[in-house]
Amino acid sequence: MREHDELTGSTTRSQDETGATTPPLSGRAAVDFVEVGPRDGLQNESLIVATADKVALIEKAVAAGIKRIEVASFTRADRVPQMADAEAVIAALPDYDDVITIGLVMNKRGALRAFETKVHELGAVCVASDSFAMANQGQTALESLRSACDIVTLARQQGRRAQITIGASFGCPFEGEIAPGHIVEMARRAADAQPLEIGLADTIGVAVPAAVTDLVERVRDAIAPLPVRVHFHNTRNTGIANVWAAWQAGASVIDGSLGGLGGCPFAPGAAGNVPTEDVIYLLERSGVSTGIALDRAIEAATWLSGVMGKSLPGMVSRSGMFPKQDQSSNKGQ
Amino acid sequence: MREHDELTGSTTRSQDETGATTPPLSGRAAVDFVEVGPRDGLQNESLIVATADKVALIEKAVAAGIKRIEVASFTRADRVPQMADAEAVIAALPDYDDVITIGLVMNKRGALRAFETKVHELGAVCVASDSFAMANQGQTALESLRSACDIVTLARQQGRRAQITIGASFGCPFEGEIAPGHIVEMARRAADAQPLEIGLADTIGVAVPAAVTDLVERVRDAIAPLPVRVHFHNTRNTGIANVWAAWQAGASVIDGSLGGLGGCPFAPGAAGNVPTEDVIYLLERSGVSTGIALDRAIEAATWLSGVMGKSLPGMVSRSGMFPKQDQSSNKGQ
Repeated sequence: MREHDELTGSTTRSQDETGATTPPLSGRAAVDFVEVGPRDGLQNESLIVATADKVALIEKAVAAGIKRIEVASFTRADRVPQMADAEAVIAALPDYDDVITIGLVMNKRGALRAFETKVHELGAVCVASDSFAMANQGQTALESLRSACDIVTLARQQGRRAQITIGASFGCPFEGEIAPGHIVEMARRAADAQPLEIGLADTIGVAVPAAVTDLVERVRDAIAPLPVRVHFHNTRNTGIANVWAAWQAGASVIDGSLGGLGGCPFAPGAAGNVPTEDVIYLLERSGVSTGIALDRAIEAATWLSGVMGKSLPGMVSRSGMFPKQDQSSNKGQ
Repeated sequence: MREHDELTGSTTRSQDETGATTPPLSGRAAVDFVEVGPRDGLQNESLIVATADKVALIEKAVAAGIKRIEVASFTRADRVPQMADAEAVIAALPDYDDVITIGLVMNKRGALRAFETKVHELGAVCVASDSFAMANQGQTALESLRSACDIVTLARQQGRRAQITIGASFGCPFEGEIAPGHIVEMARRAADAQPLEIGLADTIGVAVPAAVTDLVERVRDAIAPLPVRVHFHNTRNTGIANVWAAWQAGASVIDGSLGGLGGCPFAPGAAGNVPTEDVIYLLERSGVSTGIALDRAIEAATWLSGVMGKSLPGMVSRSGMFPKQDQSSNKGQ
C-alpha cells in the first residue's frame, strides 16, 4: 500500500509547487483530472458491470495517462448493487506507484471498510441542502458536513489521503436555489478538517458558467491554499461550459467520466458526468495540458460503450479529433 | 413587405442604442437571437419536411418570442432538396411587423430569387478556406467573399437588410487549422460592404472557448461598430461553452436551432446547431435577457421532435427547467 505523503505531490500541483495562498491564475497551463466513471458513472447505470470489466476500465484510464481515479464506493450493496464489489475491484488492481485510487465513503462504516483495502484516498461527501442530504444520506446538511469532516480526520489518522465534496452546490432537486454564501460557509468549515481539496458538485446538472465563475472564485478565496475540485453533470448541456468557467476561475482539479456515463439515482432528471474525452479535447485544444492522451481516452470510451451495450453521451469519440493527424500548421489563405 | 429601415432597430441593439464604436461589454444584459432551425436545421436532415410544418415551426418560434428567423435558403433544389420550397414557405408566412425573416443566398441567382419574395433579410455566406469554399460553392475563399459583398450591395439597392457569415471560421474539415488573422482580414473586407453584421460560423464544430474569446474580440475590434454574430455547432460538446465565451467577448447576436437540429452536408462529422432551448437556459439563468420564453421554446422543440420522428440533441427539453415553478427564492440552510 502506498503512503499518504509519497502520493500527494502528483496531483495537488498548484498548492505544492507554488506555496501561494491562492492558486496562480495567470500562466496556469496544466490541470489535474479525476476519472469518476468507474464509480459515479457505473453506479448510475442499471447494468451491473462485472468486476473484471471495472478493472479493465480503470486500466484503460491509466493507460490513457489518467493519474487519479474514483474506483469504488463503500456503500450499502442493497442500496447500490452496482458498487457491491468495491473490495474485489480494489484487490484486483495493480499496486500503482503513480496513480491514486479513490474510494467514496458516505459514513464511518464505509471509511472502516476502505481502510481494509489498499485504496489510496477517501472521498467524503456532504450535501448542501437538508432535503437532498436526507434523501441521500438520511442526515441534515450540517450533519453530513460533520460526518465528512470526521472521515477526513479518521483517514489522516490512518495515513490515507482524503477530500470532501459538497453535493448539490449549484442547486437542489427538492429545494431549488442554493445560496452561494451557504456553500462558501460549508467549504470554510470543511477546510477546517484539512482535506486535501474541496470539491463542488453540480449533482443535478443545473449550473451555468456565470454561477460557476462566482462560486468557484468565492470558495477558492475562502479555502486557499486548498485546491478547488469541480464535478459537473451535463444534464442541461452546460457541463463543458462549466468546466471552462471553473478552470478560468481557479479550480485546479476537474472530474469527468469516460463516455459521459453517470448521473445520480436520487436526483430526478440528472444525466451523465461531463465526458472525459470531451473535457480533454476542450482543455488540450485550449492550451491547457492534462497529461492525458485523447486518442487513448477515445479508445477507452468506445470500448466502454461496447461493455454497456449502448452509445454513450460523449461526442468527441463520435466526431473524432481535430485537427486530424495529417492536418498540420496554419493554412489560412 | 417591410422596409429595411423600419426593421433595423429591433435586432442591432448594441449598435443602435449606444452609438459606441465597440459594443459595451460591462452591464450588457440582453442578447439578440437568431433561430436557424427552419434553414440550417432542416437543410441537413434526410427527412423532407412539408411546407406546412416548416411554417408551423417558424410560427412556434415566433410564439416563443424569437424575433429573427432564418426561414429558407435560395439554393439549387437538386443539391438541397430540403430547401426546394423556399418561395412557398415565405409566401405562406404572415406579414410580420416585429419579426425579421432571413433567406440564405449563396450567389446572385439566389439573391434575385429572394427579391421576388417578402423575405426581410439576405444572409450571404463566404468560406474561410479555399478547399471548403470550393466544396461548398465552387469558388475560392476570396471569390466567395467578393460574392458575399456583392450580395450585400445588391440587397441594399433593393432596400433589404443583409449580412455576411464567414463559414469555417474556427477550422476547416479539409485544411485543418485556420489562422485567426485570416478571419480578421476577411471580416474587415466584408465590413467594407456595409452588411448589418458579420457572423463567425464554426461550421464543423471544432471551436473551443479560448479560440472563440480570441477571435470574437479581434473581429469585434476590427469591424466595430458592426455587431458580431456567432454560429456554433455542438459537434464536440463545446457549443454551449462557445456561446458563453462569445457573449463575454462581445458578440451580440447568437444563432441556435430548436432541438439542436442541423449540421452541414459538406462537412464530415458535423453535428447539430446549438439547441435554442439550451442556449436560452444558459443565458437567462446567467442573467442575460433573450426575450424568449423558455417553456414555449421547449414546447416547440418537443413538437419538432415529433415532426422529425426522432429525439433531438437538445437537453433542457428532456431534463426540464430549473428551478421549477414551485421552487422560489434561496433556501440555503
